[in-house]
Amino acid sequence: MRTLDAGGETLEPGRGPHDSGAGAGVEEPPFLAACFGRPASRVPVWFMRQAGRSLPEYRALRRDGAILDAIRNPELAAELTLQPVRRYGVDAAILFSDIVVPVAAMGLGVDVVAGRGPVVAEPFRSEADLGRLRPFAPEIDTPYVLETVRILAGELDVPLIGFAGAPFTVASYLVEGGPSRTFAATKRLMTSDPETWHALTDALAETALAFLRAQVAAGARAVQLFDSWAGALSPAQYRAAALPAARKVLEGLADLGVPRIHFGVGTGELLADMAAAGADVVGVDWRVPLSVARRRVGERPALQGNLDPAICLAPWEVVQRECRSVLAELGGEPGHVFNLGHGVLPETDPDILARVVDLVHEEGRRGSGA
Amino acid sequence: MRTLDAGGETLEPGRGPHDSGAGAGVEEPPFLAACFGRPASRVPVWFMRQAGRSLPEYRALRRDGAILDAIRNPELAAELTLQPVRRYGVDAAILFSDIVVPVAAMGLGVDVVAGRGPVVAEPFRSEADLGRLRPFAPEIDTPYVLETVRILAGELDVPLIGFAGAPFTVASYLVEGGPSRTFAATKRLMTSDPETWHALTDALAETALAFLRAQVAAGARAVQLFDSWAGALSPAQYRAAALPAARKVLEGLADLGVPRIHFGVGTGELLADMAAAGADVVGVDWRVPLSVARRRVGERPALQGNLDPAICLAPWEVVQRECRSVLAELGGEPGHVFNLGHGVLPETDPDILARVVDLVHEEGRRGSGA
Repeated sequence: MRTLDAGGETLEPGRGPHDSGAGAGVEEPPFLAACFGRPASRVPVWFMRQAGRSLPEYRALRRDGAILDAIRNPELAAELTLQPVRRYGVDAAILFSDIVVPVAAMGLGVDVVAGRGPVVAEPFRSEADLGRLRPFAPEIDTPYVLETVRILAGELDVPLIGFAGAPFTVASYLVEGGPSRTFAATKRLMTSDPETWHALTDALAETALAFLRAQVAAGARAVQLFDSWAGALSPAQYRAAALPAARKVLEGLADLGVPRIHFGVGTGELLADMAAAGADVVGVDWRVPLSVARRRVGERPALQGNLDPAICLAPWEVVQRECRSVLAELGGEPGHVFNLGHGVLPETDPDILARVVDLVHEEGRRGSGA
Repeated sequence: MRTLDAGGETLEPGRGPHDSGAGAGVEEPPFLAACFGRPASRVPVWFMRQAGRSLPEYRALRRDGAILDAIRNPELAAELTLQPVRRYGVDAAILFSDIVVPVAAMGLGVDVVAGRGPVVAEPFRSEADLGRLRPFAPEIDTPYVLETVRILAGELDVPLIGFAGAPFTVASYLVEGGPSRTFAATKRLMTSDPETWHALTDALAETALAFLRAQVAAGARAVQLFDSWAGALSPAQYRAAALPAARKVLEGLADLGVPRIHFGVGTGELLADMAAAGADVVGVDWRVPLSVARRRVGERPALQGNLDPAICLAPWEVVQRECRSVLAELGGEPGHVFNLGHGVLPETDPDILARVVDLVHEEGRRGSGA
């Protein structure tokens, strides 16, 4: 087990990776079991953006460096991935990376600006921009990501989740040139030149698929496809303009046997389609109670979520009540991965997240073990 | 009929207010009929933010002036309200104003910054800030708004919609200090100090209620309560922290007999609660098909929406198809006010909106007249 410097923080006894629940091979990790709807010894829990600014040990290591530089440094990226696993005892690690890493590596003029997000120097606006795309070769374009995965595969006692941006969401950054509230340029391209839109998202599907397959080959044991902004679409728009490319990615992973998580925000009306795209697990934000989400997706896929990240800023009594409410929504069914509905907010007190993990492990426990 | 300068634009023949469908008192205006679910000669249509940057005559009149200054000028505000009615032949006018006008007038340090939105110099963060609130007296604090309404009541042949910001949404600006993606500070206050939160939203409910009653007294024939950001809340959060104050406003208007429209974005899971708050009409954004919205709200309230504003950037064939799809969703039931799901985007071609109005009037027509 690596014991890299944890930024001067004292780790709580018993919260290291050794104690994070995977056991010594005698039991399927609770996270993987839940993803496939199989009974496990406890409700597994992890947090989107669990590695990040809310952790003092993260801030100590990252300092003012650019995030893409940190991602290009496998030792650093691995350590940033491990920090929250050590601190919280979560049931899964999520690779420290960013959804624009492949398109940045392909020379499309993408950068990630602190406080703003991904920006694109010359946005994609027409068919002519398709010429800027080229096939993505993970071992050549992003060898550092795969090296990070390999380091982590040797270090972690819990499954590592690899991830990629979904074609719609990555395309929206390329077309808008940065974060957007309205997705006006994206929808304009989508509706005025559907051929170019489909060519763009198909190329991004190939990219995401190659990237995720390479991550699994390097040791990732689950994958999450982040279609973070798909909720900006109506159901009809989603089916026409986002679902086909997402399906290409998810179905292209089927032979690998790893759980495929399909996530977005504000996707209440899209949940059934997101499941049908080939997901083993569907992410649900806090706007939709999990019992409602269950009715919408049907029996098969597991559900991941859905505590409001902002609730973690409340006093513990409130957080506790809300965690219990999330757990109660699914009545203890096996197919539940506890998580936030979106990423950890930077102002979150890490101690609250540690208590959430303990509560979920205590109160979400089921009969089959532990 | 006023014929103020329309910014150098030539008005299309037959698109002035005289032709906008209210008739000479022989027929209930289609907009009011639809709001109450009564049969009308046509499906009424108007557009949120129909007065705005997409109109060259608006840009010519507004130039670089501050929006709050334009609102404080009744002649100008009335003309900006009339411009889209003349150009589009819509079935209702919406007062040119802003949801932060009352709190700005109350001296709470609120301004509206071009390109950013409302900002608050000293955000509300604790009980101590409650002392900054005082009762709102529309005739003293915002006489210019009521003067604008009176001018318009004498000019318009279609109903004027007055409006106010809902307590949750206005409070979110006061607490965040500006627009927010996460509403973290708002939710923190809401959950950590519910007494202060309730006192704040109750005061803002009194403000909105007084403001709307004064607008109706001055001549507004319908009101819209903008809870634009309520969709950031889970259903449980909405019921605890937003619904009570919204209900206070809406139920406080019941005796006036004017239709009460209750609007928000991303509110798919909140529609039934928003109806139950005392709405005659519930606004629906483009994420929820109107037939789904109808099932969620039940038979009574009318529905307003729900064309995606970004669709109006597409070629006409696409816009036409989408308009027909919106109309088909409710199968011609009387309780439908055609609108966008959110405000007109600044880059919208006004000619497209004019064609949308014509299409809705042509194809949404029903048997009872016209």
